[in-house]
Parts: sequence; structure tokens; C-alpha cells
Amino acid sequence: MSAEVEEMLKRYQGIKNIVGIIVVDNDGIAIKSTLDNQMSVHYAGHMQTVTEKARQVILDLDAANEFTSMRMRTSYFEIMLMPHDNFFIVVIQNPCD
Amino acid sequence: MSAEVEEMLKRYQGIKNIVGIIVVDNDGIAIKSTLDNQMSVHYAGHMQTVTEKARQVILDLDAANEFTSMRMRTSYFEIMLMPHDNFFIVVIQNPCD
Repeated sequence: MSAEVEEMLKRYQGIKNIVGIIVVDNDGIAIKSTLDNQMSVHYAGHMQTVTEKARQVILDLDAANEFTSMRMRTSYFEIMLMPHDNFFIVVIQNPCD
Repeated sequence: MSAEVEEMLKRYQGIKNIVGIIVVDNDGIAIKSTLDNQMSVHYAGHMQTVTEKARQVILDLDAANEFTSMRMRTSYFEIMLMPHDNFFIVVIQNPCD
């Protein structure tokens, strides 16, 4: 998984206005992060909850469908969630130029 | 609320490739929909769960922040969630041209 994760990190680091990138395993543990430990743990757990809920809901609506990504906009920033098989990536982005 | 809801519906009906639009109150009840009753009830309940979870998570991460919208991409379509004070709007869109 490690090479795959590194490649993903590189890819997302190229996105403009990135505040942080966290790679989270399916147990909600941050396995790689550009944020400090406290923030990473905080985001990882919370985003795991949202990702699981979204996966569940999409499957419940249509068992042949699959949740592929999510973008949440908040007053301060945007959060992108990209699930993969054994982990998911959280990208926190400042939407202002 | 009704005039506000009508205005929102008109606004979102202009978006390309719309499959359906549902206005859902904060109890998860579809109060307006362009889909049939069964689909509306199904989506309303599930999307209310996701919206509530997102609201909660964003507030937990920063009590001064606010969840303003969400876009979920799946293998088949995209779902947009736009929360308002007493209701939220679900727009299901086919991403293909």
C-alpha cells in the first residue's frame, strides 16, 4: 500500500491552496499526514465517520452503485474525501485564491 | 418557507442533466420532489442521515465553522446536498453529457 499512498500524496500535493492532506485507513487511523498529530487524529476519525455513512447510504440506495468521492464545502474551507480500497484520502483546501 | 422552496426548486431545475430534485425537511421528510414517492422517501431519509453527520462533524472540528454544501460522486451519478435553515435540497445529477 505504501507506494500507492506516496503516489497519491504527490498527486494531491499539486492541488492549489492545500491546507493539509491526510491518508486514513479504514479504521479511522491517520497513516500519513501533512498536518500535526492532533489535527490528523481529529480529522481522521471524523472523516472516517462521514465516509462510512456515505458508502452505506449509496449502497443502500442502489447495491450496484459505488461511492467514489465527496466534496464538502464549509464557511472556511473545502474538504475532499477520496475513498480507495484499504484507505481514503482527506484533502483540506482553502477555496480562496 | 414555501415561496423560498419554490424559488430554490426553479433555480436548481436549470442545472444540466438533472435526474431529480428533492426538498427535505430536517426530520428527513420529502416536502417537495420531482421523483416518484418511493424514491423521494428513500432518498430523503438517507440524505438526511448524511447531512446530519456532515453538519455534526464540521461543527465538532471547529465550532465557528458551518457546513454549506456537499457533492457526492458515485459510479452512476452525482448527488448535491445544500442545507438551509429548516430544510435541505438534494439534487441528483447525471454527470455524463
